[in-house]
Amino acid sequence: MVSIALFGAGRIGQIHGRNIAASRRAKLAGIADPMPDGANALAAATGAPVRSIDDLLGDKSIDAVLIGTPTDTHADFIDRAAAAGKAVFCEKPVDLSSGRIVKTLERVKAAGVPLMIGFNRRFDPNFAALQRRVADGVAGEVEMVSILSRDPGPPPVSYIERSGGLFRDMMIHDFDMARFLLGEDPIEVFSLGSALVDPAIGKAGDVDTAAVLLKTRSGKICQISNSRRATYGYDQRIEVHGSKGLLSAGNVHETTVMFAGERGLTADPVQNFFLERYAAAYRNEIEAFIDAMERGRKPSPDGADGLKAQQLADAAQKSLETGKPVEVV
Amino acid sequence: MVSIALFGAGRIGQIHGRNIAASRRAKLAGIADPMPDGANALAAATGAPVRSIDDLLGDKSIDAVLIGTPTDTHADFIDRAAAAGKAVFCEKPVDLSSGRIVKTLERVKAAGVPLMIGFNRRFDPNFAALQRRVADGVAGEVEMVSILSRDPGPPPVSYIERSGGLFRDMMIHDFDMARFLLGEDPIEVFSLGSALVDPAIGKAGDVDTAAVLLKTRSGKICQISNSRRATYGYDQRIEVHGSKGLLSAGNVHETTVMFAGERGLTADPVQNFFLERYAAAYRNEIEAFIDAMERGRKPSPDGADGLKAQQLADAAQKSLETGKPVEVV
Amino acid sequence: MVSIALFGAGRIGQIHGRNIAASRRAKLAGIADPMPDGANALAAATGAPVRSIDDLLGDKSIDAVLIGTPTDTHADFIDRAAAAGKAVFCEKPVDLSSGRIVKTLERVKAAGVPLMIGFNRRFDPNFAALQRRVADGVAGEVEMVSILSRDPGPPPVSYIERSGGLFRDMMIHDFDMARFLLGEDPIEVFSLGSALVDPAIGKAGDVDTAAVLLKTRSGKICQISNSRRATYGYDQRIEVHGSKGLLSAGNVHETTVMFAGERGLTADPVQNFFLERYAAAYRNEIEAFIDAMERGRKPSPDGADGLKAQQLADAAQKSLETGKPVEVV
Amino acid sequence: MVSIALFGAGRIGQIHGRNIAASRRAKLAGIADPMPDGANALAAATGAPVRSIDDLLGDKSIDAVLIGTPTDTHADFIDRAAAAGKAVFCEKPVDLSSGRIVKTLERVKAAGVPLMIGFNRRFDPNFAALQRRVADGVAGEVEMVSILSRDPGPPPVSYIERSGGLFRDMMIHDFDMARFLLGEDPIEVFSLGSALVDPAIGKAGDVDTAAVLLKTRSGKICQISNSRRATYGYDQRIEVHGSKGLLSAGNVHETTVMFAGERGLTADPVQNFFLERYAAAYRNEIEAFIDAMERGRKPSPDGADGLKAQQLADAAQKSLETGKPVEVV
Repeated sequence: MVSIALFGAGRIGQIHGRNIAASRRAKLAGIADPMPDGANALAAATGAPVRSIDDLLGDKSIDAVLIGTPTDTHADFIDRAAAAGKAVFCEKPVDLSSGRIVKTLERVKAAGVPLMIGFNRRFDPNFAALQRRVADGVAGEVEMVSILSRDPGPPPVSYIERSGGLFRDMMIHDFDMARFLLGEDPIEVFSLGSALVDPAIGKAGDVDTAAVLLKTRSGKICQISNSRRATYGYDQRIEVHGSKGLLSAGNVHETTVMFAGERGLTADPVQNFFLERYAAAYRNEIEAFIDAMERGRKPSPDGADGLKAQQLADAAQKSLETGKPVEVV
Repeated sequence: MVSIALFGAGRIGQIHGRNIAASRRAKLAGIADPMPDGANALAAATGAPVRSIDDLLGDKSIDAVLIGTPTDTHADFIDRAAAAGKAVFCEKPVDLSSGRIVKTLERVKAAGVPLMIGFNRRFDPNFAALQRRVADGVAGEVEMVSILSRDPGPPPVSYIERSGGLFRDMMIHDFDMARFLLGEDPIEVFSLGSALVDPAIGKAGDVDTAAVLLKTRSGKICQISNSRRATYGYDQRIEVHGSKGLLSAGNVHETTVMFAGERGLTADPVQNFFLERYAAAYRNEIEAFIDAMERGRKPSPDGADGLKAQQLADAAQKSLETGKPVEVV
Repeated sequence: MVSIALFGAGRIGQIHGRNIAASRRAKLAGIADPMPDGANALAAATGAPVRSIDDLLGDKSIDAVLIGTPTDTHADFIDRAAAAGKAVFCEKPVDLSSGRIVKTLERVKAAGVPLMIGFNRRFDPNFAALQRRVADGVAGEVEMVSILSRDPGPPPVSYIERSGGLFRDMMIHDFDMARFLLGEDPIEVFSLGSALVDPAIGKAGDVDTAAVLLKTRSGKICQISNSRRATYGYDQRIEVHGSKGLLSAGNVHETTVMFAGERGLTADPVQNFFLERYAAAYRNEIEAFIDAMERGRKPSPDGADGLKAQQLADAAQKSLETGKPVEVV
Repeated sequence: MVSIALFGAGRIGQIHGRNIAASRRAKLAGIADPMPDGANALAAATGAPVRSIDDLLGDKSIDAVLIGTPTDTHADFIDRAAAAGKAVFCEKPVDLSSGRIVKTLERVKAAGVPLMIGFNRRFDPNFAALQRRVADGVAGEVEMVSILSRDPGPPPVSYIERSGGLFRDMMIHDFDMARFLLGEDPIEVFSLGSALVDPAIGKAGDVDTAAVLLKTRSGKICQISNSRRATYGYDQRIEVHGSKGLLSAGNVHETTVMFAGERGLTADPVQNFFLERYAAAYRNEIEAFIDAMERGRKPSPDGADGLKAQQLADAAQKSLETGKPVEVV
């Protein structure tokens, strides 16, 4: 039984807290959040107590900390949890600054604690099955990976302003998936972006429509595209083309119901957003973290994966700003 | 080069006439129709002359006759063409009376000429591929065949009144497909029918919505359903379930274009009706007829197939009228 | 908070017990089963105590009993639970004898307790969405309902022998769905059946491949087909054709992953069997039962629905034995 | 009746020659090819005479010339046909050198003859329907266009060496489709490419796997990817994402037959290559050319479209060679 403390009871913390509480192998040891409403609601739903961060970090019976707080606090909390000897599961991204990530990873390494980063899409049953088949060689040698992510609608501009930009906030998931599926690190990044969905996003210095090309040392190519808008739901698709064929994983529709009428054949919209589409992924990633702890294994994806994805996002942002391809070491 | 005369230049005759004219192995030797408009239009399009039936039957250079006239003239024209020593391709059904069909088949046999019946669906590329795989054992031992046919809309009641009823006019195609796919003759027929689409069809003594169950001696089961209405186009689907799996052949959509929007994912309607959906089937069946003639082989489906399908339609009609299952010998 | 006792901790009892325990609105008050292994495992997983049936029935704090015991004990337990003033949720079928069902329903009525029957498919998210759209008139006037159910493989012959036969054991679900979707009771039943999957099933007096036609008073037609075998998984499909179009609900595949290679485009198999395919349906039906109790409403489907489905199964069995259609009042 | 001469009776000339001969509005006036085999075969199939180029160009009764000769002769033949006052339909590309294309377009302009370029994909029924809906605003404002083309297998290296490279030989079609769908000219091109399919292609200085990003002045983005290999057939897909939703056009499978068995659900491979997949497109583009001539309208796509696509291919090649994005005026 792994005892886990939760820092942050906002939207994502609610998910993780409930999944920890529902796991047969873990115990939700306490919930800390400066905002009492979310913490209390989660306490009522799970039976776990609301406690302070200091109290939780000082409790020797607690094995791990799950960090679901705002991004700009992630690195500090990782540092403190590592110093307290706790294993850490931290939501992506570790930090908007790659330099800051590097420092935190050094502290985690010095403390000798495991660190897992919440790249939930690796644990989506469809994408996980896709990756296993790629790794098993079903598609042969990988030649081209195509990743497409579209949100149903843009977040408020106030969110955009603090987000680090589309590449660090949204496409970071796709950079991680690219590495997961290519089986090799990209060494070159080129990006294009526009503010087509909402001019206010452009005024805030960000883009809402973007496409990126990545190339690995051996010449594999990856194309990623993102949009902050999709009228038909949360579009999440991946294709991996290789010497033996094409593996793809498509969207999940709300139901299997179809209607054939005068206007053609209509299927239900795709599941609307990440809480619904990735519900199983969130459960599975927590189980993977618990599993790693129980077996004394290094969890994956780890801090280095968090750093690599951030460096790709940095490179994409730099490419957008300079109009040139950017090398990644 | 097979020389073929066409009797009947109506809707179906136009199709057959053009396909004969376009074939590299056949020549359209002449067109006969009491209505000059259709015959003249077809003559203009193909370059073939309009001639009288007597003239065509007396022309020794003509190898075969394609009969695309109204149903109640089919048997007479088969008799006359056979007596003149011509090979015959006759549109389905041979006649609405099984007794009349038997007599004509005897005359054809006595004349020693080949007779092919226009069950076009056997030549649809999709259904033909399905049948070949069934015959090759892909689905294993066949256990259940399901056939569904829906027209986009009902014909005029005046047509219904002369049609012989839904089973002989519309479901006859499905009875033929059932035999084609079961690889065995049904020995029992049970039918249900209702006039749900148009009460006038009910007043005319016919049904517009019907379902039939067939059973073969070895216990294989076939379910057929028909409707005279489908808002979404011409619905033509077949499934064959066997010990090794399920083979199915679905509808053909107008294009592959899809639209994903606020209301879900919409595909184009299915191709609207038989001239469009079975365009390739009509070409292929004429080529099969020409091929059989060139090679001196018996064409298939033949007159016996026409008779068997008619007997199943008769049995379904009798079952509807008596409310009991009907045995077929 | 509804307090529910569970009778029977076999395969289906395990599901229901866990779903009750996980519900935020219910409490699993105790588990009774003469076999200690299942009961103890469920107690360990849920924290609910193992108790005797008498103890549970005598406990005034318990609101309801969920009966997941073998079929031949259902009616007795319903009688006893009703006599004890408990609301009852009973797995289908109520009993293999319609006469026995009638007697039990009278006792339930006399006791004034609610009775819900576990026709889980009504609560499958796909089929439930389909039915709502049918009820909302999306397909217009219903003309034909097609229901197809295939199990991945046959149960042991020892099970078949005690099952009441395919119509009462397997197709009973489809008879309930037919009523659910037709919005009208069938008045005529005709069935065909064969033992094609396993000759031993035939020797045991049952069939493993069957097709049924139903007709309602207003002329609506329903076709149902069942097979005890499907190499590709648990095949569960429904189509409702009406004056405005066709509503359908298809299978659920294990993942959305597809592979396009030399042999074509391959999707994953469909979810293998009912525990997986209907996991959400089992959760939803328990929630519906709890909801009805909390609101003081009559649950649905109720005992009368259980009786009607049984009468259709009886009629199908009689039709199979007599070779004639059977009227249902 | 438009009288058309054919220059070139190779693979593509055979297609065009037969389509001209089969058209009700055109006459194949003669076939010229230095290799007698292809010309004679086409003459036998169509009844058109084999004639010399000089003879055809000097024949006042001939309205137009269709040029299906090797690429390096296109521009010369366009010049000669224009000088002779003939309308011209020329296979893509006009020439591998944009400078040469400019000169030829000046000559065509001076001669005042119509020139149509054979970008056949614009006439594929699926892509044409897609484009019409984009133009009709079904997807709203276009934000991102994604085009994917994969050939079933690479051509011989000897072909590659004379081809002008993947961007000018293969992706030129996609550059034209990008312009067709974006409704705006790209101003920036960035490309990545690798030789992953066949190292010999790399040794020949070309790539076999490539991805390109295009951006228009208003910020619309287009991603194109190409591979010289696809084990599953000729992969030809387009997606257009806009403010109102996503329009897509998928592959065409050989049949609609599917098999569900132990390994999942398998659809037929996609149609194997361009002669099959674009058979209707080839017919439709010739009809469009004939139609433009009959109505005295400018055909589309025209020489300027040929030049623009070539300039994008040049830019992609330059981007590949320099590793930098390239501006296009």
